[in-house]
Amino acid sequence: MSEYMSSTALPLGSFAGRMAAYHMGWVDTHAQPQASSSGKFVRPSLCLWACVACGGDVESALPAAAALEWIHNFTLIHDDIQDGDRQRRGRQTVWSVWGMPQGINAGDALFALAFTNLAAQSHVPDRTLRVVRALSEATLEVIEGQCLDLQFEGRIDTTLGDYLRMVRGKTGALLGASLEAGALASGAAEDLSRAFRYAGRLLGTAFQMRDDWLGIWGDPSLTGKSRSADAKRRKMTYPTIVAYDAMSPSQRGRMRALFGEQATERDSEIRELLEEMGGSELTREAPARFARKAVNAVARTGLSKESVEKFDAMAHYVATRRR
Amino acid sequence: MSEYMSSTALPLGSFAGRMAAYHMGWVDTHAQPQASSSGKFVRPSLCLWACVACGGDVESALPAAAALEWIHNFTLIHDDIQDGDRQRRGRQTVWSVWGMPQGINAGDALFALAFTNLAAQSHVPDRTLRVVRALSEATLEVIEGQCLDLQFEGRIDTTLGDYLRMVRGKTGALLGASLEAGALASGAAEDLSRAFRYAGRLLGTAFQMRDDWLGIWGDPSLTGKSRSADAKRRKMTYPTIVAYDAMSPSQRGRMRALFGEQATERDSEIRELLEEMGGSELTREAPARFARKAVNAVARTGLSKESVEKFDAMAHYVATRRR
Repeated sequence: MSEYMSSTALPLGSFAGRMAAYHMGWVDTHAQPQASSSGKFVRPSLCLWACVACGGDVESALPAAAALEWIHNFTLIHDDIQDGDRQRRGRQTVWSVWGMPQGINAGDALFALAFTNLAAQSHVPDRTLRVVRALSEATLEVIEGQCLDLQFEGRIDTTLGDYLRMVRGKTGALLGASLEAGALASGAAEDLSRAFRYAGRLLGTAFQMRDDWLGIWGDPSLTGKSRSADAKRRKMTYPTIVAYDAMSPSQRGRMRALFGEQATERDSEIRELLEEMGGSELTREAPARFARKAVNAVARTGLSKESVEKFDAMAHYVATRRR
Repeated sequence: MSEYMSSTALPLGSFAGRMAAYHMGWVDTHAQPQASSSGKFVRPSLCLWACVACGGDVESALPAAAALEWIHNFTLIHDDIQDGDRQRRGRQTVWSVWGMPQGINAGDALFALAFTNLAAQSHVPDRTLRVVRALSEATLEVIEGQCLDLQFEGRIDTTLGDYLRMVRGKTGALLGASLEAGALASGAAEDLSRAFRYAGRLLGTAFQMRDDWLGIWGDPSLTGKSRSADAKRRKMTYPTIVAYDAMSPSQRGRMRALFGEQATERDSEIRELLEEMGGSELTREAPARFARKAVNAVARTGLSKESVEKFDAMAHYVATRRR
């Protein structure tokens, strides 16, 4: 996937291309080749699986798979600016190397690149156009989810319903579009691609819950991210919400006080309170439940046992991954 | 155009939709209806003209015209963040109302919306896909131009060649795509849509040069922008470059010193030096020359006299506008 994407990328001679290639882990800040982690390619993997599962040729889904990864990376670059995060995949984030204004450009460029390559490599225009629509609609939902994520920061009264709505957009929409786009690229019928989208959205919720767990209890040498970033911004994550839900009035009072203080030394107190309330265990279990629902949704479409088993393995990875 | 676009916009119930509608001048910050200026609609006008000039039905170019205006406005929202500008069309910019992180989301949402509506309203998939490609490729060039614009800030040694390269991307690419997309939507032949793109790029250079003039000598009550924004950021504009080119060594030394100082009170000294070197006159003349080249390029395609005259009127407006 990485080789395919770099062959369709922005020219390294351009400013935006250098930033994009750096973000992808292909070059260092001086545009010299470097082999760093490019991420897990969850979205392209789901897309290619979906295409093959629907009886399509894997190559027909490659442009859609690449577009999904570009879109995902565009959102990461902008998220890092919005959250002020300086580390991603164990390296400096784009904005912390080139500054906020150029960082915005780098994200914008990856977003444009997604559609450029997709449209340029089309052999079946009406299928590709359906993919364009699925990806751009999903991106709109991702952005709305991101708006809510920022809006909920520091708001300890955020409900589980709010959280699920935010996550369905922020993460679910693009995982849904990953399965949907693979199905569309194969020429699958409308109802099958819709069922795939539904399954992908469920898996997206599992993905985000696991991400929340990794953000607090993950191993930074594996995740490539600081363990205090979410806590520092008082992000409303799954463990925060379920732990707060289980608290006594006095514990809630303490949590509200901690959430109101911006001091970093409060981060470990917040973490201890979450652990005390079982936030870690609950957040380990929840992704498995959503992944199971996603597998059931896929199984109900009547795919072959072998196809369902492959999806099951991916869903298991999403729900239990350590990076 | 405004009515057409608002009927295909993001739902006002969404956070991103409210910011987008505010930016477009349709609602106030509390999502209450308001009639403010939505901009000049130069790109949609060029697109619709091109479609009709190529013998197409104007309605077939409406989705492309709307997409162009969404893309243009996405770049404005992000530019305002990058430049730290607090005023646009006589109102507060999106980021200065909702903050930088949400401002990034608002721009991203308009970019996604451009492709969502375009793909959703297609009747001729292969034509629409060509439009998607033209618009996304042009946007990549716009972003690269924006990278260069930021990179050139404060660099008094920027050459006219650097400037023209930056402007061809930042402004020329999308005006080129406006004419190209109109031609593509009409089903025009490849060579005609390419000739239109070329003409639009020339007109884009005229547009930006006029913008540079308005940024320094325009009437803020008409432009809706502060007259000191470009100067404050030491932007390398056409008047700055041609004036510096005409300066004696001692004048250049003074200009370099002024450019090095970040003090705002130096802005009027810079403006006086530009005027002394004829920067204002030169910047009034240059857009007319590029607009003329654009009209000639259009005339060479063999369009009817009436079509060329309509384009001529738009080109004249672009080169001499006061807002």
